[in-house]
Amino acid sequence: LANSNHSSIGTVVLLGAGNVAWHLGHQLSDAGIHVVQVYNRTPESGLALASELNASYTHEISQLKDDADLYVLAVSDSAISAILDSGWFKNGRFVVHTAGSVSIDVFQGKALNYGVLYPMQTFTRGKPVDFRDVPLFIEAKNAQWRIKLEHLAQRLSESVMWVDSAERLYLHLVAVIVSNFPNHLYALAEQLLDEKGLSFDVMKPLIRETMDKAMSMSPQKAQTGPAIRRNKEVIERHLAMLEQYPNIREIYRVMSESIMKKI
Amino acid sequence: LANSNHSSIGTVVLLGAGNVAWHLGHQLSDAGIHVVQVYNRTPESGLALASELNASYTHEISQLKDDADLYVLAVSDSAISAILDSGWFKNGRFVVHTAGSVSIDVFQGKALNYGVLYPMQTFTRGKPVDFRDVPLFIEAKNAQWRIKLEHLAQRLSESVMWVDSAERLYLHLVAVIVSNFPNHLYALAEQLLDEKGLSFDVMKPLIRETMDKAMSMSPQKAQTGPAIRRNKEVIERHLAMLEQYPNIREIYRVMSESIMKKI
Repeated sequence: LANSNHSSIGTVVLLGAGNVAWHLGHQLSDAGIHVVQVYNRTPESGLALASELNASYTHEISQLKDDADLYVLAVSDSAISAILDSGWFKNGRFVVHTAGSVSIDVFQGKALNYGVLYPMQTFTRGKPVDFRDVPLFIEAKNAQWRIKLEHLAQRLSESVMWVDSAERLYLHLVAVIVSNFPNHLYALAEQLLDEKGLSFDVMKPLIRETMDKAMSMSPQKAQTGPAIRRNKEVIERHLAMLEQYPNIREIYRVMSESIMKKI
Repeated sequence: LANSNHSSIGTVVLLGAGNVAWHLGHQLSDAGIHVVQVYNRTPESGLALASELNASYTHEISQLKDDADLYVLAVSDSAISAILDSGWFKNGRFVVHTAGSVSIDVFQGKALNYGVLYPMQTFTRGKPVDFRDVPLFIEAKNAQWRIKLEHLAQRLSESVMWVDSAERLYLHLVAVIVSNFPNHLYALAEQLLDEKGLSFDVMKPLIRETMDKAMSMSPQKAQTGPAIRRNKEVIERHLAMLEQYPNIREIYRVMSESIMKKI
């Protein structure tokens, strides 16, 4: 194998071409690490990303370049297992996955040298993020690969932390709560405003300030609104206004009850 | 009365000393409108705000100055009714409340000249906001007061809109969904991280990017996470991890179901 314990990671094969792969691939490339090949089952996004990164493309595991320093599985949770089941990593090639929600044990018996590189961010292909800010949670089973992985991660981000799989799964759960759920609330708001011909834009100063407060003070102390004031009259009226939207109504009820419990 | 149809509003009596009163009082003052008096039931915050605004202070409705151009009820929903029940506004003094969730009908039979000035923002006393950005939703029953109220509002904010009470109550409901609920999710996240000795700071880049996406693209299109991917294995694992936190678990379940419905 081309890998040695004394050299740093210079070449990467990137498996996947979705949101995480797109951002990670570009950040690797920007950091001077050569993405030599992109693997993706569907050619369209795979070829596009390969072209952006000046990499070759394949949709066959058997056609992977066999001399890269690192193989990055930036694919869906189920695709990680499927790719590992190919047996391709059994010979000791260094492989990491990027999933917040998949234990390092997924590699057991299917790879020799492995780890995790989890960028905790919400990625959308084509929308650049400041990757230097993105927390990277890393894990490596094999001590000899720890230094290489940490060094690579530090070239990508200023915020690199070692966590074990249990901690990472917990962080991922919290990440869902602070990112996916608020975004869904914005989506529901957009829907409610659409129904009345109102623009979502009108909510933007409020959304921005809510986030700004969370950055500068404890969210528990920043809580405002009818529920924290236990204003049941307003809560009941809001629930009545949501009668035609049973899922929004249920969210409203459960959230308000939870806020009232915190008093 | 000192008010005339031809002059603009120069003097204000501010009733309340909470978060909304604090921000509105300072913005009125910064815009060159003289807050002549602060009323508040409890002296501590009332005196403090009065002093900041160079205004006098009272805790008695009967001691209100009777020649101000405008009386602003920046108090809790229930206090609005209580103050109006005093009968002090029956003689035609121009009075507005600032509540998103209270219909203009609250004034009926209790005031002659009245309106609403609802600043849609999450206010925390002592944390400055850019008030010029804050959407102000205004309403006035009496046509002759509409011009004065609009003129005043435009001195406070660049975003002034006329809405009726039904529209305002609807906007307030949506504001709760995009502000109070995401903030509560941040508070729950803070609690979950505390339990493991982790800092809420680690979530800040993710929270910032989630908000940033909502500013620049449709939140419905920005949705990421296990629920939108219908990854039931991860959802079930997260629910199991939340077993000791029944209210967070319920929120997780209801939010995930709602996200899955949107596909």
